[in-house]
Amino acid sequence: MAGSSYGKLFQITTWGESHGKALGVVVDGAPAGLPLCEADIQLFLDRRKPGQTKISTPRKENDEVEILSGVFEGRTTGTPISLIVHNTSQRSSDYSEIANYYRPGHADYTFDAKYGFRDYRGGGRSSARETIGRVAAGAIASKILSELGIHLTAYTKSIGPVSIDMERFDKNAILETPTCMPDYQASKQAEQYLAECMREYDSVGGVIECVIDGVPAGLGEPVFDKLDANLSKAIMSVGAVKAVEIGDGIQVASRRGSENNDAFMMKDGQVTKVTNHAGGILGGISDGSPIIFRAYVKPTPSIFSPQKTVNKAGENIEISIKGRHDPIVVPRAVVVVECMAAITILDALFTNATAKMDTLKRIYHA
Amino acid sequence: MAGSSYGKLFQITTWGESHGKALGVVVDGAPAGLPLCEADIQLFLDRRKPGQTKISTPRKENDEVEILSGVFEGRTTGTPISLIVHNTSQRSSDYSEIANYYRPGHADYTFDAKYGFRDYRGGGRSSARETIGRVAAGAIASKILSELGIHLTAYTKSIGPVSIDMERFDKNAILETPTCMPDYQASKQAEQYLAECMREYDSVGGVIECVIDGVPAGLGEPVFDKLDANLSKAIMSVGAVKAVEIGDGIQVASRRGSENNDAFMMKDGQVTKVTNHAGGILGGISDGSPIIFRAYVKPTPSIFSPQKTVNKAGENIEISIKGRHDPIVVPRAVVVVECMAAITILDALFTNATAKMDTLKRIYHA
Amino acid sequence: MAGSSYGKLFQITTWGESHGKALGVVVDGAPAGLPLCEADIQLFLDRRKPGQTKISTPRKENDEVEILSGVFEGRTTGTPISLIVHNTSQRSSDYSEIANYYRPGHADYTFDAKYGFRDYRGGGRSSARETIGRVAAGAIASKILSELGIHLTAYTKSIGPVSIDMERFDKNAILETPTCMPDYQASKQAEQYLAECMREYDSVGGVIECVIDGVPAGLGEPVFDKLDANLSKAIMSVGAVKAVEIGDGIQVASRRGSENNDAFMMKDGQVTKVTNHAGGILGGISDGSPIIFRAYVKPTPSIFSPQKTVNKAGENIEISIKGRHDPIVVPRAVVVVECMAAITILDALFTNATAKMDTLKRIYHA
Amino acid sequence: MAGSSYGKLFQITTWGESHGKALGVVVDGAPAGLPLCEADIQLFLDRRKPGQTKISTPRKENDEVEILSGVFEGRTTGTPISLIVHNTSQRSSDYSEIANYYRPGHADYTFDAKYGFRDYRGGGRSSARETIGRVAAGAIASKILSELGIHLTAYTKSIGPVSIDMERFDKNAILETPTCMPDYQASKQAEQYLAECMREYDSVGGVIECVIDGVPAGLGEPVFDKLDANLSKAIMSVGAVKAVEIGDGIQVASRRGSENNDAFMMKDGQVTKVTNHAGGILGGISDGSPIIFRAYVKPTPSIFSPQKTVNKAGENIEISIKGRHDPIVVPRAVVVVECMAAITILDALFTNATAKMDTLKRIYHA
Repeated sequence: MAGSSYGKLFQITTWGESHGKALGVVVDGAPAGLPLCEADIQLFLDRRKPGQTKISTPRKENDEVEILSGVFEGRTTGTPISLIVHNTSQRSSDYSEIANYYRPGHADYTFDAKYGFRDYRGGGRSSARETIGRVAAGAIASKILSELGIHLTAYTKSIGPVSIDMERFDKNAILETPTCMPDYQASKQAEQYLAECMREYDSVGGVIECVIDGVPAGLGEPVFDKLDANLSKAIMSVGAVKAVEIGDGIQVASRRGSENNDAFMMKDGQVTKVTNHAGGILGGISDGSPIIFRAYVKPTPSIFSPQKTVNKAGENIEISIKGRHDPIVVPRAVVVVECMAAITILDALFTNATAKMDTLKRIYHA
Repeated sequence: MAGSSYGKLFQITTWGESHGKALGVVVDGAPAGLPLCEADIQLFLDRRKPGQTKISTPRKENDEVEILSGVFEGRTTGTPISLIVHNTSQRSSDYSEIANYYRPGHADYTFDAKYGFRDYRGGGRSSARETIGRVAAGAIASKILSELGIHLTAYTKSIGPVSIDMERFDKNAILETPTCMPDYQASKQAEQYLAECMREYDSVGGVIECVIDGVPAGLGEPVFDKLDANLSKAIMSVGAVKAVEIGDGIQVASRRGSENNDAFMMKDGQVTKVTNHAGGILGGISDGSPIIFRAYVKPTPSIFSPQKTVNKAGENIEISIKGRHDPIVVPRAVVVVECMAAITILDALFTNATAKMDTLKRIYHA
Repeated sequence: MAGSSYGKLFQITTWGESHGKALGVVVDGAPAGLPLCEADIQLFLDRRKPGQTKISTPRKENDEVEILSGVFEGRTTGTPISLIVHNTSQRSSDYSEIANYYRPGHADYTFDAKYGFRDYRGGGRSSARETIGRVAAGAIASKILSELGIHLTAYTKSIGPVSIDMERFDKNAILETPTCMPDYQASKQAEQYLAECMREYDSVGGVIECVIDGVPAGLGEPVFDKLDANLSKAIMSVGAVKAVEIGDGIQVASRRGSENNDAFMMKDGQVTKVTNHAGGILGGISDGSPIIFRAYVKPTPSIFSPQKTVNKAGENIEISIKGRHDPIVVPRAVVVVECMAAITILDALFTNATAKMDTLKRIYHA
Repeated sequence: MAGSSYGKLFQITTWGESHGKALGVVVDGAPAGLPLCEADIQLFLDRRKPGQTKISTPRKENDEVEILSGVFEGRTTGTPISLIVHNTSQRSSDYSEIANYYRPGHADYTFDAKYGFRDYRGGGRSSARETIGRVAAGAIASKILSELGIHLTAYTKSIGPVSIDMERFDKNAILETPTCMPDYQASKQAEQYLAECMREYDSVGGVIECVIDGVPAGLGEPVFDKLDANLSKAIMSVGAVKAVEIGDGIQVASRRGSENNDAFMMKDGQVTKVTNHAGGILGGISDGSPIIFRAYVKPTPSIFSPQKTVNKAGENIEISIKGRHDPIVVPRAVVVVECMAAITILDALFTNATAKMDTLKRIYHA
């Protein structure tokens, strides 16, 4: 398996290149009986569309999804759901030049090293368009989770030096601002900062945060399939992510145990935690508190200022990248991160289903 | 699979609880013909032993490894290598009290939530002793990698507020200092800081860094089994790790693309990078530069000062943890992190072996 | 994973229902650099087409394959190859009646039991059309194997009481006869027998044999992923197959050891076997002799004579199946069996690649 | 993974060689809360013990199992259960001679071809002692199934020309006869036949049948993880098995559809089948009828009469095998086959648990 499948029981397999005929995903393991239509999925795909604002590439990508299998009379049948999005807006000529050199910060060189050659058009398989499959599958996972009372909210936490203020947190802003920040004021500042980056032919990084509410205690498998371990893999597998942290993350490294431990207390007859430094996961297993994690995203490697690199002939050269590129990856990656988390949580729900003899007996009426 | 196996082709399966009869690992997929004896493995296990210095628990754990299968006349046979370490130093009476309450920062509550009850002695399966299997397996992975010219070096980067100075970097210090810091001076400071923590009945976190030299370009599978994604899962699966970063990690989120991109250049006829902000991985595939990553580790949750929590009867109580506990997890986790990385890199070497028709033909003389 | 993926390193994921929009497969793990075009795949798909002769259904299924990803400038890129075949000849009205009862010998009842409801049109996911994805993927596996000197030949060995005579074996006949028998004379007899079955509104079973030449010794992994174990799973997963045997198969159960053991002898400096009762596999590992196995296939369950069954309301009823159905499954299943074997052998070649330190060093020039 | 693990959610990993220090298995995925002690497992291991009767080898193998992890206060904890059986009766000197040649019908040559060398003592990893791990794990699977109302019964159906008569079927005879035949009279005849084989320095094959009662309809995953496909792999992975059939198996190949289809009918308000030619599986999914399958087992390859073979120097030689060998594999393989089936059925129960939204909601009280 060349790494295009993810998930043990709720398994997705993505395929497609930036400038191929189409991209898609096969979702295997969705339970039967879920109401599902294309609109459910389109809603999520529209959140990753470019061409929507001035801070994103002027490319128009309609990215209309089609369900090819696995749904009958409006409900999932339990068999694989195949989803396809046709490529309609490729201008391959834009990319012919990059066939012969390696763009800094891109996977051009490593794909050549691994495979001997590559589909160089628009980054081929390493393009951000690859995430279409993840988002389409994540839409299904999110709908199942929603029926189980589990809800995910990802948003932009910071762009370059501009961070949101949690006191101004407004969930509506996530879908309404071009930055996907839940803070209208910070979003305005970030847009100004991005305009400045663009004027300077440069790009910038940022941070995505995700909160998951309603996760029951008990998800995650010791010792290698810990919930935080699987989330880390899922999130780090998104292109451009260079760090992942759970709960208070990097801060815990300089803390005392007395500060960092979350005391337990009874609340409404339930075991709860007074604080949530742990981010909802203890010993790799969900503890019933909200799960919180963050992804640190690098600046778009495609910048318009001149850069030094080498070509396939082994010569040192200087290049200027052309084409249509966002100055920041973060806003469009927000829904991708949310979807990868949804798939991971759902798979954990599935693998946990048979952890106790009692549950097993209940399932099979024994 | 309840999550106790890791790796696709070089697969390890660990088992054992803190206070059970023994702990161990089955290593399946080690190639035939590798010279291997118990001393090769003991060398690594000794690096995680407690009771060696005043900053670690006074427990004596000899942790002598025995090879039960898979080695014949001094060489691996290609069949599963079963390794066992008998538990010899358990004092279960120490732990009887914790059977009825949930220690803050521990997995007591989440194991109960998941399984209905737990082996409470010394943390059971969630104990740090679980890492014995990882380290034993990692010793084998490291030996194979070493024969292929790949070498890993993990060390403590910081403990609480004390960080190493890379200008004083001395590899020998890693094995010689009780902190596993590659800087004798920083280690002295850290020891003082730890003594202070212990006097205050408290614990502290820290950072582990790992550098991997000699990794050929081309390892890692797009798109979900990216090398950094798999490393993140491997490292985050080590108890107490709360964040993982690759290369410059979290710093890239506030950087410009022009700062963060690593220019390529030719050097001795090879494609190399002028800088290595990416930490040796581009697009999820190794680029031939050293791989660098960091793990952020939380403070030991077992502290001796009083803490609030709840018991199994659902009452709010205050507890004082007794027993033998390190004030810091980091030094003993250094070898665990190194071993998990070794297993991950080796598995990537295996899965990459058939990426090209040319290599396949070479293997099978076609 | 709901069972729609097969293979560890060369992994295929199929999707699609009989009367959905399309069917297809994602092939992940094909090595880069293989010349590949639609015609390579169409050649295999045409071998499973119905509507070609009077012994098969008069349905016209063009089943034209389209490559959607993973091939660039005529060669595989190492990334997932997505293949699609659009459904063009469905007449759903034919099947509306079967929505409410369970056809004997079909999966109608078991799908309802498992999922609560089913896509009843033409058998949905349990239709023989599901094998389109297997055959498309098998065409790619076969092409890779061919470049490594490995060739597979499957054919019909018997239909009802009519068996081929190995002395009349003619490979050309496999593709030229409507029965896929490598014996023109037996094929004529079988056609007469089938005409008789059709007149009697009945169907009949048969046997498929497959020979694989050029397999190097050493493929197959002890103890669970034995080559014969994996072949058995692959072949038994083809609908209507009820028994699988390797080499002399069922006959060995009544044999003496002195008859059944294959003596080794040197031939042209190579270890060979004097006989091949074992069918090319010893201890689950290929021994360098041709691999031989057989699949026993049940009669088409859809017959036109009246049958007793029950409906969804729980009433005993009598039904007469209408529609277009072959009186025998075997001829069209020949290429499916061959393709499943090809995928299994290729996957075994991949997993075996890293069995020895020597090979590993050779791959990585260490 | 070199093939020593089996099962997706109830996963077993076996290890150990015939003449190593010990053999064992790690069982990962057993649900928490199952009462379990060594006697539960010993009961099954005792059924595969040699040295019990004159038709089996005079070797004494006590094969006492020890639970090393995963059980606390008499119940499973949900964490991996490690089981070990120490080797006590090896006489390695018996085998030194076979180091240099390849025994016909054994895996000596194929292990050398695959790995470059082998642990030749008693067959090493390809020894029948490898099945100890399977049986120990199968005992746990059987106990869980038993609590869910599912019961397996495997027995010897025939030995050479001697078959049981189903009219004399007596379940007690399975455990009481040395042949494991459920027919005292046939067993006597088989014993006489075996005595004759031994006098002639020869061995013989036989057939094992297994019936599984109480399996609910709905188990098995279309299309590759069909229940019969997984059973076939499990059973074919047992050394010496050369054919597997489900239900009426090979007989269906010469049948008419009108004979072979099992009519459905209502009985006590349940959908049932009038006949069970299908062996309890339709379209790869259990149909609620008893599951029936058969394994065809080859004669013991170790025979005392002279045989032709080659040695490692590439010379044609004649050998006479010495040592202690059963004239038939079948009786001791009965419990192995039963255990592999139990593991497969249990895993199917696990993977099926999340097939419907309704069940998922019921598990998580949503």
